[in-house]
Amino acid sequence: MSQAYEELTTRLGEIVDLGQAAAVLHWDHRTMMPRNGAGARANQLGSLSKIIHTKFADPELGKLLDEAAPWAEDQGYDSLEASLVRVVRRDYDKLVRVPPELSAELARTAAIAEPVWEEARKASDWAMFQPHLEKLIDLRRQYVDCFDPADEDYDHLLDNYEPGMKTAEVRTVFDELKAGLVPLIADVVERAEAVDASFLEGDFPIDAQKRVEGKILADFGFTNDSWRLDETVHPFASRSGMDDIRLTTKHLPDSLSSIFSSMHEFGHGIYEHGGDRAFERTPLARGASLGFHESQSRMWENLVGRSRPFWQHYYPLIQEAFSSQLNGVDAEGFYRAVNRVRPSLIRIEADEATYNLHIILRFELEQEMITGRLAAADIPEAWDAKMMEYLGVDVPDVADGALQDAHWSGGSIGYFSTYALGNVVSAQLWQRISKEIPDVYEQIGRGEFTQLREWLREHLHQHGRKYMPKELMERVTGSKLDPKPLLAYLRGKLGEIYGL
Amino acid sequence: MSQAYEELTTRLGEIVDLGQAAAVLHWDHRTMMPRNGAGARANQLGSLSKIIHTKFADPELGKLLDEAAPWAEDQGYDSLEASLVRVVRRDYDKLVRVPPELSAELARTAAIAEPVWEEARKASDWAMFQPHLEKLIDLRRQYVDCFDPADEDYDHLLDNYEPGMKTAEVRTVFDELKAGLVPLIADVVERAEAVDASFLEGDFPIDAQKRVEGKILADFGFTNDSWRLDETVHPFASRSGMDDIRLTTKHLPDSLSSIFSSMHEFGHGIYEHGGDRAFERTPLARGASLGFHESQSRMWENLVGRSRPFWQHYYPLIQEAFSSQLNGVDAEGFYRAVNRVRPSLIRIEADEATYNLHIILRFELEQEMITGRLAAADIPEAWDAKMMEYLGVDVPDVADGALQDAHWSGGSIGYFSTYALGNVVSAQLWQRISKEIPDVYEQIGRGEFTQLREWLREHLHQHGRKYMPKELMERVTGSKLDPKPLLAYLRGKLGEIYGL
Repeated sequence: MSQAYEELTTRLGEIVDLGQAAAVLHWDHRTMMPRNGAGARANQLGSLSKIIHTKFADPELGKLLDEAAPWAEDQGYDSLEASLVRVVRRDYDKLVRVPPELSAELARTAAIAEPVWEEARKASDWAMFQPHLEKLIDLRRQYVDCFDPADEDYDHLLDNYEPGMKTAEVRTVFDELKAGLVPLIADVVERAEAVDASFLEGDFPIDAQKRVEGKILADFGFTNDSWRLDETVHPFASRSGMDDIRLTTKHLPDSLSSIFSSMHEFGHGIYEHGGDRAFERTPLARGASLGFHESQSRMWENLVGRSRPFWQHYYPLIQEAFSSQLNGVDAEGFYRAVNRVRPSLIRIEADEATYNLHIILRFELEQEMITGRLAAADIPEAWDAKMMEYLGVDVPDVADGALQDAHWSGGSIGYFSTYALGNVVSAQLWQRISKEIPDVYEQIGRGEFTQLREWLREHLHQHGRKYMPKELMERVTGSKLDPKPLLAYLRGKLGEIYGL
Repeated sequence: MSQAYEELTTRLGEIVDLGQAAAVLHWDHRTMMPRNGAGARANQLGSLSKIIHTKFADPELGKLLDEAAPWAEDQGYDSLEASLVRVVRRDYDKLVRVPPELSAELARTAAIAEPVWEEARKASDWAMFQPHLEKLIDLRRQYVDCFDPADEDYDHLLDNYEPGMKTAEVRTVFDELKAGLVPLIADVVERAEAVDASFLEGDFPIDAQKRVEGKILADFGFTNDSWRLDETVHPFASRSGMDDIRLTTKHLPDSLSSIFSSMHEFGHGIYEHGGDRAFERTPLARGASLGFHESQSRMWENLVGRSRPFWQHYYPLIQEAFSSQLNGVDAEGFYRAVNRVRPSLIRIEADEATYNLHIILRFELEQEMITGRLAAADIPEAWDAKMMEYLGVDVPDVADGALQDAHWSGGSIGYFSTYALGNVVSAQLWQRISKEIPDVYEQIGRGEFTQLREWLREHLHQHGRKYMPKELMERVTGSKLDPKPLLAYLRGKLGEIYGL
């Protein structure tokens, strides 16, 4: 083995260890930590993050990458060695472009902006948040200036979440999606109002919710040896080792949202659990992009977990668990209720169809912010206009409008689009899966998920970050990013439910 | 402020952050982690520990200590600055004496020996463990050779747990303790057999145990804002910040041991919770020694939690919680049962009096091992002889004899004595407390612990590691380490219970 490569993997192994340690600390912060531990925890995470940055941006690491590259490439494009050098080279080149002072200033500004955003949202007061957003946008522009010019400045921001993806490509996909979704939603919205979903609000004892989701997750592939599920405020999935996968959820006594959210987080978890074991302690042991990650969570939540066969199988379980609440409701009624389309104000409460328009709105506004065509002061007005245009929804106050999400206050610009890209990718993958496992829905209707899970592992999960998202897409589906399968899926499903 | 001092505290702050991060990882390992996460966790902890070592043993840190010392000393002996430089200087000088290769070899050997010890204990087979212990003793001798000769080689091992304590001093204290305890125990053992403690084994529903210990801990000073209590296999206390204190316990459905073990761990937790807030992010934010630490856990478990006034107050609570199991038992009967003296095989199950003899036995054997007067092969025989001599107990097999504890397999030699030193110190402190708070037991009899807790914070906890254990002892009690208060306490308590 090349000595440089060996030294490189030793250094990367240490960096990955520290990153996984930080993952445990973040998970603990959001699930277990006594409230007053926050100060010490911020110091611990700050020190870890500084050491990780210093070790990764070390010029010696750059030299090792240079030295190891010829030998690694000789191992073949698909080899662990060539892939590791390729992926880390790209990460390294991006990282060293950004002065540590700018990164620190971004982190500091976000740390100040986040509690202000919380207050501003409570007070529904955009002006309170606006100067912080202005500063964050300015810093993000300085970030963009660290790199060679791209087709569009926004490309550099998108690249942090979807490596190699161009703004223009996403725009094309989203424009087609919007053109298809706006009329589809307008068509079904009135009929969907007639669907009875009143029984989805009421009395759902949390112990019974836990039994139901425990059974579903176990059928999916969750085992106590390698997984946990805990309570949190904003659910997420975390990994501190390929065999240490932690899902979180929020049980509400009057809603079944946790069941869907647990299936969603399972999708994230199984992606990282399914990576090639040779990737452990390397930066390849993650998802190819946030869009691909979201494709997995959306697939298990929606394509699996909101399908008719799924509820034909699991409805008896849930009806037995909540027998008085679901009295008189049958599997078909339940299936229709959990698929009700209803344009609404809040992204995270949106259904499978309208959700994408919430994202497209944000994607469009972010570009305007970065180009400077839209001043921070004018965002709420632009937001409200798009909400009316795309969803026919009137925004009564900015708390439920442009102030609803935390992302911007954390300095994250370019992140939102990955949610809708995830939907697009999930439908493309499903089209392929349906060809290769023609009876996939029959299997789901029997509560069998092994073949689906294994297919995903073999074709997607095992590759981790080895390939760029576009490359991976071509390999798995044989085609480019394309909104047609998602549109076809939604048209088919909603058309059938609402009899279009 | 001295620039060197400022740079020193920055470096130490980072080291402390990493240590606290490791504490979270250790806690998580033993309470939360899915079993299959162990491999990744070992890597994470290994990398953290390596980085901590490298940063602490950095010659630059040594230089900063030199440069900062004159200015720090000018701030006065008791100042944070002078104390920090004094304590860290001592740690640093010890650390750099030991070649990293030797530390690594010790860690590696222990990592191999621990699972072998577990197997050997299961098989009750000393020969299986013996070669590993021989290697560990040899490495510990090499460790001793890294330092300038002391009065006895064992001093260097003891120093890792009781800084500045000499073997000869401990020997003197332990000899006096043994001379007092052996006849005292022999005197009470027969009468103690007549005490009915049969009701301490039976049906103790875990939910009810949790209610009882939750109430006791809350009265002690446990709050959900800064503390947690979780389930584990071998209970311990952990701190990842002065306001992030984590106790652990093991609930058994047929025993009340968790209630006493929780009070014990509370004592460890409140010690670190009570440190001067200016010590956060410095190496001063810990206990002065393991003996002092144990003095706090033993105090809350025994001097408080096995006292008559305590049970006069809490017995109604526990009787209500386990009404059928404790049917016909009164507070006095319960008090006597939880104080029953009974020589037994296993250290961790021993009562307040016999416990010390289990420790003295180990302290004596460890010295023989290190001087080489006793070969590893001969330990079980020597062990069994002392068990008979000190406690009149016949050891039926080595699993319940010399193989019962994990410490040696982890390479810890010198650790055991701190348990009995803790008992000695706790009684010395209690003597002082009884003078300064004459009605302390009346307060305990009303479930009031504020004045006791505050006294401990003011006189002991707030000082963290600022003073050497001997120095601290003189400051808090005005006397040297002395077994007489412990002997007087046990003679008084047992004499009264058993009518000597």
